[in-house]
Amino acid sequence: MRPGPTTRTRVREVSAGVVRDHRDDLATEEPLEIRIQAGEARRTLAITMRTPGHDFELAAGFLYGEGVITPQDVSSIAYCTDEDVAPEARYNTVTVRLGGERLPDLPGLDRHFMTSSACGVCGTASLDALRDRCSPLPAGDDLRVSPETLYGLPHRLRERQGVFGKTGGLHAAGLFTGEGELVAVREDVGRHNAVDKLVGRALMDGRLPLGGHILMVSGRSSYEIMQKALTAGVPVVCAVSAPSSLAVDLAREFGMTLVGFLREERFNLYSAPERVVSS
Amino acid sequence: MRPGPTTRTRVREVSAGVVRDHRDDLATEEPLEIRIQAGEARRTLAITMRTPGHDFELAAGFLYGEGVITPQDVSSIAYCTDEDVAPEARYNTVTVRLGGERLPDLPGLDRHFMTSSACGVCGTASLDALRDRCSPLPAGDDLRVSPETLYGLPHRLRERQGVFGKTGGLHAAGLFTGEGELVAVREDVGRHNAVDKLVGRALMDGRLPLGGHILMVSGRSSYEIMQKALTAGVPVVCAVSAPSSLAVDLAREFGMTLVGFLREERFNLYSAPERVVSS
Repeated sequence: MRPGPTTRTRVREVSAGVVRDHRDDLATEEPLEIRIQAGEARRTLAITMRTPGHDFELAAGFLYGEGVITPQDVSSIAYCTDEDVAPEARYNTVTVRLGGERLPDLPGLDRHFMTSSACGVCGTASLDALRDRCSPLPAGDDLRVSPETLYGLPHRLRERQGVFGKTGGLHAAGLFTGEGELVAVREDVGRHNAVDKLVGRALMDGRLPLGGHILMVSGRSSYEIMQKALTAGVPVVCAVSAPSSLAVDLAREFGMTLVGFLREERFNLYSAPERVVSS
Repeated sequence: MRPGPTTRTRVREVSAGVVRDHRDDLATEEPLEIRIQAGEARRTLAITMRTPGHDFELAAGFLYGEGVITPQDVSSIAYCTDEDVAPEARYNTVTVRLGGERLPDLPGLDRHFMTSSACGVCGTASLDALRDRCSPLPAGDDLRVSPETLYGLPHRLRERQGVFGKTGGLHAAGLFTGEGELVAVREDVGRHNAVDKLVGRALMDGRLPLGGHILMVSGRSSYEIMQKALTAGVPVVCAVSAPSSLAVDLAREFGMTLVGFLREERFNLYSAPERVVSS
């Protein structure tokens, strides 16, 4: 059976001593196995807990963000149809098939998948490694965003968070144009997954890189969120809550505009403020 | 230099069109490399982004939760002192030295570190794998918690969240006795890390398993949070926000009491309600 984004369950509510049994919706959490295949060669690259829905986008966006694939590499994306996979697991396995006959070298995976550099790990080394595969975003690009546009984003994101509305328990990421028009919203129990799904959608639509766009996330901004935005070419990232120190370092290093605590008619600007101008 | 839990930075605040430049504190995010060593054999088991502070606890708690070590295995825990590691990275590397001369077989890591089972991944298979190394918690254990005790936990957690108070950007986890007395609070940019730090503290104090205790987390409850609580033997887990479907499945399967939406004088009970009784 194909899992849906929400799961119905029984729950006992206790409120000021009054007990009431009823049924409620939970955000579904299920593992997703992401595989790549080229010719007969196949490899599992990740198993991630996620909320079912937009799984092809999640797989494509994850692989793109890790530097494993470019949009041109993808020949097809499909759920598992192997006889050797149990039926209930088939919708939890996505295979991205590449055009060629050989699997890529997978350089980007080393960082993520547990090897360490000879000189040890630190934030600076993480940024150095990122510089090997990403250029800074041009500060002189055309994107200019008004404070009024930013003020409006949280509400636009929230009104499209369908699963959150039902369950109260999900991260969301929204992609907007520079004028604040909503392009797409994705939700997931994992906040990185919501961003991967947006990037995967753009990849499948042939719209990468996403210069001229704004990414808005419902929670905090971390190194990984910023790294995914950078590799997708998004110049402005907004978050409802606080950024981490390394998120700010990354934004400054790569010329990205990072906005935090975006609520009501206020926000903090941590980097590249020249893109935010009063209209 | 040893990184601290907060990092001072400049920030531009924009509020209803008024611009003000000042300085503010961010939650620090830096990678931590977790190594185990036995005799001369050494292996890196994880690199995780974390907020510096309580790093030994994080390393110990992570390794315990993954089934890599038992409390008896640990002979010492130390920051890196290798000459071949850059000075700025030494406080980002923790080595847990084991008593014996051989590294363990590391069976638990397969699940986490990217191998898949032959029959595919799904929530049920994840619970099955967990059953191989964890027993259900006894529903007939002595722990009984009153609703009034639960009502008081969020406030007690919040008033001890020192870094959150400064930065507005951190997850917290608190360990409480069955009477609601606070044992310890830990904070981290990664919510799983905050739980690992609590479990690591208990391990180093010789207090595992944590029967009779309550774990409270500041955000949502997911599969991984529940799995860490289960391996530490915590029978009651409370969260300010919603649980995922798989968090509830795990709690029911293993006899854990899962409380969600614990705010003011109300909460939802998802499993093992017999541990919650009016006093």
